[in-house]
Amino acid sequence: MTAPSKLPVREGRSALDPRPLSVKRGVNPHAPGSAHLIMGHTEILATVTLEDKPAPHMRGKKEGWLTAEYAMLPRATNDRQARERNLQNGRRHEIQRLLGRALRASVDLKHFRNQTIYVDCDVLVADGGTRVASILAGHAALHDFCDRLIHSGRLSEWPLTHKVGAISVGLVGEEIRVDLDYAEDKVARADLNVVATDTGLIIEVQGGAEEGPIAQEDYVQLLTTGVQAVRGVMAQLGRELAVIQGV
Amino acid sequence: MTAPSKLPVREGRSALDPRPLSVKRGVNPHAPGSAHLIMGHTEILATVTLEDKPAPHMRGKKEGWLTAEYAMLPRATNDRQARERNLQNGRRHEIQRLLGRALRASVDLKHFRNQTIYVDCDVLVADGGTRVASILAGHAALHDFCDRLIHSGRLSEWPLTHKVGAISVGLVGEEIRVDLDYAEDKVARADLNVVATDTGLIIEVQGGAEEGPIAQEDYVQLLTTGVQAVRGVMAQLGRELAVIQGV
Amino acid sequence: MTAPSKLPVREGRSALDPRPLSVKRGVNPHAPGSAHLIMGHTEILATVTLEDKPAPHMRGKKEGWLTAEYAMLPRATNDRQARERNLQNGRRHEIQRLLGRALRASVDLKHFRNQTIYVDCDVLVADGGTRVASILAGHAALHDFCDRLIHSGRLSEWPLTHKVGAISVGLVGEEIRVDLDYAEDKVARADLNVVATDTGLIIEVQGGAEEGPIAQEDYVQLLTTGVQAVRGVMAQLGRELAVIQGV
Amino acid sequence: MTAPSKLPVREGRSALDPRPLSVKRGVNPHAPGSAHLIMGHTEILATVTLEDKPAPHMRGKKEGWLTAEYAMLPRATNDRQARERNLQNGRRHEIQRLLGRALRASVDLKHFRNQTIYVDCDVLVADGGTRVASILAGHAALHDFCDRLIHSGRLSEWPLTHKVGAISVGLVGEEIRVDLDYAEDKVARADLNVVATDTGLIIEVQGGAEEGPIAQEDYVQLLTTGVQAVRGVMAQLGRELAVIQGV
Amino acid sequence: MTAPSKLPVREGRSALDPRPLSVKRGVNPHAPGSAHLIMGHTEILATVTLEDKPAPHMRGKKEGWLTAEYAMLPRATNDRQARERNLQNGRRHEIQRLLGRALRASVDLKHFRNQTIYVDCDVLVADGGTRVASILAGHAALHDFCDRLIHSGRLSEWPLTHKVGAISVGLVGEEIRVDLDYAEDKVARADLNVVATDTGLIIEVQGGAEEGPIAQEDYVQLLTTGVQAVRGVMAQLGRELAVIQGV
Amino acid sequence: MTAPSKLPVREGRSALDPRPLSVKRGVNPHAPGSAHLIMGHTEILATVTLEDKPAPHMRGKKEGWLTAEYAMLPRATNDRQARERNLQNGRRHEIQRLLGRALRASVDLKHFRNQTIYVDCDVLVADGGTRVASILAGHAALHDFCDRLIHSGRLSEWPLTHKVGAISVGLVGEEIRVDLDYAEDKVARADLNVVATDTGLIIEVQGGAEEGPIAQEDYVQLLTTGVQAVRGVMAQLGRELAVIQGV
Repeated sequence: MTAPSKLPVREGRSALDPRPLSVKRGVNPHAPGSAHLIMGHTEILATVTLEDKPAPHMRGKKEGWLTAEYAMLPRATNDRQARERNLQNGRRHEIQRLLGRALRASVDLKHFRNQTIYVDCDVLVADGGTRVASILAGHAALHDFCDRLIHSGRLSEWPLTHKVGAISVGLVGEEIRVDLDYAEDKVARADLNVVATDTGLIIEVQGGAEEGPIAQEDYVQLLTTGVQAVRGVMAQLGRELAVIQGV
Repeated sequence: MTAPSKLPVREGRSALDPRPLSVKRGVNPHAPGSAHLIMGHTEILATVTLEDKPAPHMRGKKEGWLTAEYAMLPRATNDRQARERNLQNGRRHEIQRLLGRALRASVDLKHFRNQTIYVDCDVLVADGGTRVASILAGHAALHDFCDRLIHSGRLSEWPLTHKVGAISVGLVGEEIRVDLDYAEDKVARADLNVVATDTGLIIEVQGGAEEGPIAQEDYVQLLTTGVQAVRGVMAQLGRELAVIQGV
Repeated sequence: MTAPSKLPVREGRSALDPRPLSVKRGVNPHAPGSAHLIMGHTEILATVTLEDKPAPHMRGKKEGWLTAEYAMLPRATNDRQARERNLQNGRRHEIQRLLGRALRASVDLKHFRNQTIYVDCDVLVADGGTRVASILAGHAALHDFCDRLIHSGRLSEWPLTHKVGAISVGLVGEEIRVDLDYAEDKVARADLNVVATDTGLIIEVQGGAEEGPIAQEDYVQLLTTGVQAVRGVMAQLGRELAVIQGV
Repeated sequence: MTAPSKLPVREGRSALDPRPLSVKRGVNPHAPGSAHLIMGHTEILATVTLEDKPAPHMRGKKEGWLTAEYAMLPRATNDRQARERNLQNGRRHEIQRLLGRALRASVDLKHFRNQTIYVDCDVLVADGGTRVASILAGHAALHDFCDRLIHSGRLSEWPLTHKVGAISVGLVGEEIRVDLDYAEDKVARADLNVVATDTGLIIEVQGGAEEGPIAQEDYVQLLTTGVQAVRGVMAQLGRELAVIQGV
Repeated sequence: MTAPSKLPVREGRSALDPRPLSVKRGVNPHAPGSAHLIMGHTEILATVTLEDKPAPHMRGKKEGWLTAEYAMLPRATNDRQARERNLQNGRRHEIQRLLGRALRASVDLKHFRNQTIYVDCDVLVADGGTRVASILAGHAALHDFCDRLIHSGRLSEWPLTHKVGAISVGLVGEEIRVDLDYAEDKVARADLNVVATDTGLIIEVQGGAEEGPIAQEDYVQLLTTGVQAVRGVMAQLGRELAVIQGV
Repeated sequence: MTAPSKLPVREGRSALDPRPLSVKRGVNPHAPGSAHLIMGHTEILATVTLEDKPAPHMRGKKEGWLTAEYAMLPRATNDRQARERNLQNGRRHEIQRLLGRALRASVDLKHFRNQTIYVDCDVLVADGGTRVASILAGHAALHDFCDRLIHSGRLSEWPLTHKVGAISVGLVGEEIRVDLDYAEDKVARADLNVVATDTGLIIEVQGGAEEGPIAQEDYVQLLTTGVQAVRGVMAQLGRELAVIQGV
């Protein structure tokens, strides 16, 4: 945890630029919603499933539920990880709970009474920022899903109440940087995952100091930068999702 | 998730007061550090164990590791929960990862090379705020542990670099309230768990909107209130811990 | 397993005295029955839960069921034990089956048709005799539970048919000793756990020779001593339970 | 649990007779010791394995360890039981711990330093008394194992210090009966499993009242009858084992 | 995987002879069908259970289902294998899926609508060929089961549509051998498990090259030899099963 | 299982044509070998990992080991399957054992002494033939891996001794068809998975009759057709792999 003598240099992007982002909708012919998202080297496959069965704690309620799952393929990372360990590890649980809260915040679940929406985010390749990339991929897959519901006439009202995205923002050396890759993430002194809407409202913030406590002012500045970055990313994602593919 | 017609009324404390807090050190005769902490009805038993074995990912490193575990007794909650489910559930993983990061931030692990510190936080009774109460109990148990290391001469330098505590802060109706109990937590529109030092530096913040996204200004105000509340709680805890019990 | 040169010396009690025993009822605000019992250094938290659901094998029967669970906190013992191992180990299963049979023998389950009573006995600190202390704590929690049922009018007839308690009794060197602590238990040549009523009737006896077979006469003498000791312990417990706390 | 109007009638044997017993040694060509034992309809296959690896808690000790496992084939019982449930259930753990203690009491483990003896008792058919039949089968397999060790010259001293057997004894109506089958076991008011030597010394007694507490005198009479019955069974088993098969 | 200098020599049988085969029906008094089969040293206990509950994927269908389970006792093999590992290992899953398909092919499942037939094949001793011996034992147990259904009048039509058996056939050196034992299996260059009917129709073939790819002609010759061998084995088994035991 | 009135009609390909096949190498920047293969709608991601640790049963041997894993993403299929069930199910074990044998047959493991090669085949989309597509993807990833070993100088000799591929071949109605999709697979009367080399030598054949036993002649004709089809597929795959991507 001692400071590295040299900080990773960004090539082809400034400190406040996210990595190149691309998304493809409708990539899974079985799922009613899906997206394949690439953000730098990080690569996520997200699918939406709608089950006609309420989650146990939502039986008899006026709303449905959305649950998210997050997992890595064994060789998504630099070292191979055994599948069983992948499924059991605590980091995975922490992340998928964040995904669930983030994506639930975007959907009006009254449209899905007695149903459960599953959003599966599988990391094909990991290079930092997999949790924020998963939120973005999950949002894209939900968008794809809702488009199909509307186009097929099964729903008459657009069920997404917010466009929810996320970005990581960190303190690398003395510099605030947006969308850290793995090399940057490892040396960041502080690291926030900011989940927010395209209009700059906050859903959740997770994270903090990595090496030593930080001042409240620094935390607020990271937060402000992150919220702004989410707005930029969501504008780009919105343009790509507007092109309806594979419906 | 619709707003309740009536918000819970606080009795005997103002919106910015935490619940009555008491702590007892040295409660476990086997453990080299332990604490029993009561905060309102929430009740935590924390013990410290020192193993002379490095964590797998710290082999050959110059520092040791601290790992935290969090679990609930089956009847800590209003309904009984099966033990196996308690151990496997994702919420537990999310919380114990937070505890681990919070408590690691307080210890200089260079003093524990090739060793692993376990902090077990077991919830005997839950009434909201169990994760922040666990951080406080864990801190108290670590304090007890370090006192014994110094008193016995096994360590000559005080190994805690920061006094780390935590508090929950939420938006109940239009009011910011500190240290929510279960009834308040259920109706809060936003809810942050602020982990900070007694001097007001931030370690981590977890949480956010519960019902709909919130404005950045509101988030920052919750944060500021939370940091201030941690300072108050740590001052009280410090006075109780200064009285050396059971060493 | 060779005989130690020195046997542990009892301080402040004779060979036939149990350790100091104290019990507190109503310690868990969520549970309809609970008790915190301390016996020497051994410390047990017992809670009662009543579920309106029959046990699978009691569906359609005229009686309910009582099931007991026993577990240790990771640092209840001198060395820390991993939670998963705690839950899976065979010793735990053996003990909780004994608890279940002992406590079921005290309740008239016709009052609980189509219901299941859970008695959770969690060992906070272990210093020998945890299984007998758990039976005593479970009995106290059941007593607390029944008092509340009667006081609240939900039951008009006292449902406990027997006052069931337990004690360990062992052969330490040539001496019969009652209520062994861990140091005594380790060197005992024979060790019985006697489950009996306050009137000296036998529910179950578990245990036997630890080092070499013992004569039938010795076994019967241990048994007789144990039954007598249970009567003494139950007289004391009865006095403490008569004081109604927290109802 | 109410008394049945009619008690099962014994055919072809008196109340104090065990069921017909037969044993065959050396039935498994891979194992260094094995036995197939039939007692009434109950049928057990026991095998002995010797591993050149100490049990974890016996590393560096002057003695080896013996561990026993007990399991049922899925259709050993009247209803089929799933294999996974068979392995996890608490009754199995309780029984195999009893087997382990019983069989360990018969072996001088100083001959097996840094080694572990496994005795696997698998129930092919169950009709009551499987735990006592497993102890008898385990004893026979150990006897077979020791014979081979002596015959092959790998051991010069007979390592069994005691001939350990077991029997069940119960109170059926007002009658004490030995070696209950399943139908008798179900209606017994009390039921002891007595583990003893061929000379009438006691290793362990497990069990007690099934319907209501019993008087101490009744318990002692059951015990005495059981010890006597073990002596009878061991005499018969000894004659069968004296005929060396398959060595 | 290099060729051994010496190939195992067959004693008392030619290359195309299977090992001595014997079968005993009705060996389990609880099961409605059972068989104990010995083939060389390999020994299998098969039981049939009929549950009045459809398999999940057969609910509402016009047919029932047959599921097979295969497991080894811990010491069926030369080295002892832990029970948990036995249950989880992939080889077991592969084999029991083969058994299920083989035995399902022999039964007209329209007679068992809304029911599930379990065939449990437990290996008591393994010396090569356990999967084919299990198919033969399973067939025998099913035959026993059907005999009882017909004799008791619960079924009026014989529900087995085919007599299904199996044999292994391998290339040992340059020689085609039938029914390999473990020593032969280890050195075989190719090894097929042929599942076929007594009239020479094929159900399934599993297996292939063990050391290097083999020519199509060699494969076909192994297959032809195997089919012929199954016919021989089924003729013998048929004669043994014609003698009705224990019904 | 009754014959469907209408058989699926093939569009754009004859009965003996496999589906369109495309493969992309070097798709995972972390893995030393990887391939993304699409065959009709079936889509597989294969990665190769080399661990410098022998498999437990290959310690001290002159060769290394290759182990394959096969898994489906939850929504690879038409209905979503829970991750835990995906990992535990028997079909998965059966398939990954086949993959392992198939891919091991292609590698000279003497080049990987004291090492273990993992080939992970993850099904992104399933539409029939996932096991043969996984063998093809695994072969492509191994080819990619070996190219890099040679190019980087870490190996001087090409370690693949055979080009191993696979295809499914089935009897749909009266017609032999190659490379069945899911709709065809469901109605096939017989179905073989043929694993063979590009030169027409057989590694393994798995499968057989689905509805009723089939004649030996039919089996041999399916086999011959399958072997021929593998040769065709391997010729095409060879052309695609000759173009070195991403090395």
